[in-house]
Amino acid sequence: MLLLRMPEQVFSYDHLFEFTKKIFQKIGCLAVDAELAAKVLLSADLRGVDSHGVARLSGYVRLWEVKRINATPSIKILHETPSTAVVDGDSGLGLTVAPFAMDVAIKKAKVAGTGWVSVQNSNHFGIAGYHAMMALHHDMIGIALTNASPLVAPTFSVERLLGTNPICVAIPAGDEPPFVGDMATTTASNGKLEILQRKNDVAPVGWVQDKNGMSSVNPDELKSGGALLPLGGDKGHGSHKGYILGSIVDIFSAVLSGANYGPWVPPFPAYVPMPDEQPGKGIGHFFGAMRIDAFRPAEEFKKNMDKWIRRFRSAKTVRGQQRVVIPGDPEREMEEQRMKNGIPLLNPVVDDLKKLGEKFDVDFD
Amino acid sequence: MLLLRMPEQVFSYDHLFEFTKKIFQKIGCLAVDAELAAKVLLSADLRGVDSHGVARLSGYVRLWEVKRINATPSIKILHETPSTAVVDGDSGLGLTVAPFAMDVAIKKAKVAGTGWVSVQNSNHFGIAGYHAMMALHHDMIGIALTNASPLVAPTFSVERLLGTNPICVAIPAGDEPPFVGDMATTTASNGKLEILQRKNDVAPVGWVQDKNGMSSVNPDELKSGGALLPLGGDKGHGSHKGYILGSIVDIFSAVLSGANYGPWVPPFPAYVPMPDEQPGKGIGHFFGAMRIDAFRPAEEFKKNMDKWIRRFRSAKTVRGQQRVVIPGDPEREMEEQRMKNGIPLLNPVVDDLKKLGEKFDVDFD
Repeated sequence: MLLLRMPEQVFSYDHLFEFTKKIFQKIGCLAVDAELAAKVLLSADLRGVDSHGVARLSGYVRLWEVKRINATPSIKILHETPSTAVVDGDSGLGLTVAPFAMDVAIKKAKVAGTGWVSVQNSNHFGIAGYHAMMALHHDMIGIALTNASPLVAPTFSVERLLGTNPICVAIPAGDEPPFVGDMATTTASNGKLEILQRKNDVAPVGWVQDKNGMSSVNPDELKSGGALLPLGGDKGHGSHKGYILGSIVDIFSAVLSGANYGPWVPPFPAYVPMPDEQPGKGIGHFFGAMRIDAFRPAEEFKKNMDKWIRRFRSAKTVRGQQRVVIPGDPEREMEEQRMKNGIPLLNPVVDDLKKLGEKFDVDFD
Repeated sequence: MLLLRMPEQVFSYDHLFEFTKKIFQKIGCLAVDAELAAKVLLSADLRGVDSHGVARLSGYVRLWEVKRINATPSIKILHETPSTAVVDGDSGLGLTVAPFAMDVAIKKAKVAGTGWVSVQNSNHFGIAGYHAMMALHHDMIGIALTNASPLVAPTFSVERLLGTNPICVAIPAGDEPPFVGDMATTTASNGKLEILQRKNDVAPVGWVQDKNGMSSVNPDELKSGGALLPLGGDKGHGSHKGYILGSIVDIFSAVLSGANYGPWVPPFPAYVPMPDEQPGKGIGHFFGAMRIDAFRPAEEFKKNMDKWIRRFRSAKTVRGQQRVVIPGDPEREMEEQRMKNGIPLLNPVVDDLKKLGEKFDVDFD
C-alpha cells in the first residue's frame, strides 16, 4: 500500500467542539441541540472514524442551505406500543433525532424489558456507535442501524440500490470494557474510500465495481457510475450475505418507519439531485435497547462477558499479529489517545472549516 | 468448478417424513414432538440446505445415545418480562425447543409489540429459517439466531472460537413472497464444505485456513486443526465484520441465556469429546418477533415491501446474470420443486438412513 502521508494539523477536542457547536447555533439550532449535535459528530473524530466527523460539518450546513435540514424540528412519536415506537424526525439533524429515538428505546426497555424504535424523516446521524453505546450506561445492550444514500450494488446488480447501511451493537461487560461492534455492511465503508481518494491510493479488489459491474480498484469509481460491494465482495465469497444484511438494515430503518428506502434514499451531498420518487420521508434509522436483567441478573451476565472477552483476547494469533482484537478496542484506545493528544485533521478539511467559519463569522483559529 | 455428480436417489417428502418421525418416536419422543422435529428437520431438505436435513438424523440419534439429548424434556420459561423470556430447553432436541421458544416470542409480541427469547440448555435446531418464518403467519418479522460448535477462527486467531452462528430474518410482504435472509456468518457454511468433501472438490480461497492460520483450499482442513473463516475471509476484505456478527450471535444466544459460548459450545458429532469446561448449559439460541402493526399499519408496510422487492428484483444485472435474487427466492423455489418431484439424497446418506432403520426396526424402503 502507498504510504503517502497527507499534511495535517492537530486540534484539541474542546476547540473543535466549541467551533462545531457555534456553527450549529448559527444555522438556528437551540444551544442544547447544537451541543448534542457537536458531541455526536465529534465522537466520530475521537473514535477514529474520520470520514464521519467534523469533515462532514460543511456537508450538514449545505443540506440546511437547501432546506433539507430543519434546525428546529418538532421530533415526535407517531405510534407506540409497550416495546415499540415510530419517531418522526421532522427533517431534523440525525445527530439530534437519533439520541431522541434511542432515549425512547431505553425508556421502553426500562418498563417492557426491551425497546425498539424505527425513525422516519431524519437525516444522517453520524456514527452508529454513539447511539448504540447510550444503552451501556443503563446496563442494556444497544443497537443502532441506519440506511443511507444508495452507493452499493446488490449481488449481480449493476445498479446502486443500498447504502453502506451500518449495524452497531454495544454490549456491556463487567471489569472489561464493553463489546462495541460497529460496521458498515459493505466490504469497505465509503469513508475508507474517501480516505483513499484523498491519498490518491488504490482500493483492494472486492471493494468496488465499475459501471458495468466489473471488479475495479479505482476508489473514484463511484463518480463514474460504479458501486461499493456488499460485505463478501463477490458471490463466491458470500456477497449475497452482505446484501442480506444491508437489506435488513434498510427495511428495519425505513420500510418499518415510513422513510425512503433502497434507491430512493436522499443523498448526503446537497448538490446531488434528489431521487425522482419518494416513497417515504427523509432517511430512516432503527434503534434497540435490551435490558440485561430482562434475561438474567446483570452481574452474572457481565461476569460471563468478561470471561468471553478474556478468552478471545488471549487466543493464539497467526504469525505476525499481536492479538485478537475485541470489537470496540481500537476505537476506545483511539478515543483516549485523541482526547489527550488532540485530533488530527487533513489540510483540506482544515481549509473547509476555516471557510465555513468565515461564512458564519465564527473564528476557527 | 469440478462437476462430479454423486450418485443419488430421490424420495418423496412424505416418505422421509414418516421415516424420520418414526425414528424420533423410537428414541422416545412423544408423537407430537416427533412430528414437529421431523417437519423442522426436513424443511432443510425441502429448502435445499441438504447439509442440515435428514443427512443429520443419525447424528441426532448418536447424541441421544450418549445422553446429550433428552427425548422427553420439560421445556420451561426461567424468567420473563413483558417483551422477553429465557427458556430452558432441558437438553431437548433443538428441533422442538426452538419452535417452543419462537412461540413464546410471538405470544409476547402480540401483547407488547415485540418478543425476544434467549434459550439455554438446547441442542442443534436445524435451519434458522424454519423458526424465523413462524412469525410470518402472524404479520410479524421473525428473527432466529443460534450458536454452534466452534469451527471458526476470529480475524488473526489460529484457534477456533466461534460456530458458523447463523442469522435468519424473515419479513412479510403483500402480493410478493416474503423476504427470508438466512445466512451463516462465515464466508461459507460448514455444510457447503461437507458437500465439497463428499464431492472431492476444492474450496475457494477465503473459506478456510490451516492450523497455522494460513489460507487454504482444502475442504478437509478442519480435520487437521484448520478453521472456517468469518464472512469477509481476511482483514482486507472485512473478516473482522463477519467476526463481529458471529460474536453477536454467540452473545445473544448464550451469554444472555446462560448457555455455553465461544470455544465451550458442545460439538454436534457425538464422538468429539466435550470441551473441558462448561460455563453454561447446552447450546444457545435467540429468537425475536416484531409485530408489523406495532410500527405502522401492516397493509401499508406490505405495500411498501412489495415495492422494495419489485425494484430490487428488476434491477439491471451484470452481464451473464438473469436477475438480482431476493433473499428467500431460491429456497422457496426449491421447496416447491422438491415437494412436487421429491428430495434427492446422496447414496452415502441413503445407506446411513437404511442402517439407522435396521437398528430401530423401521423400514426405510
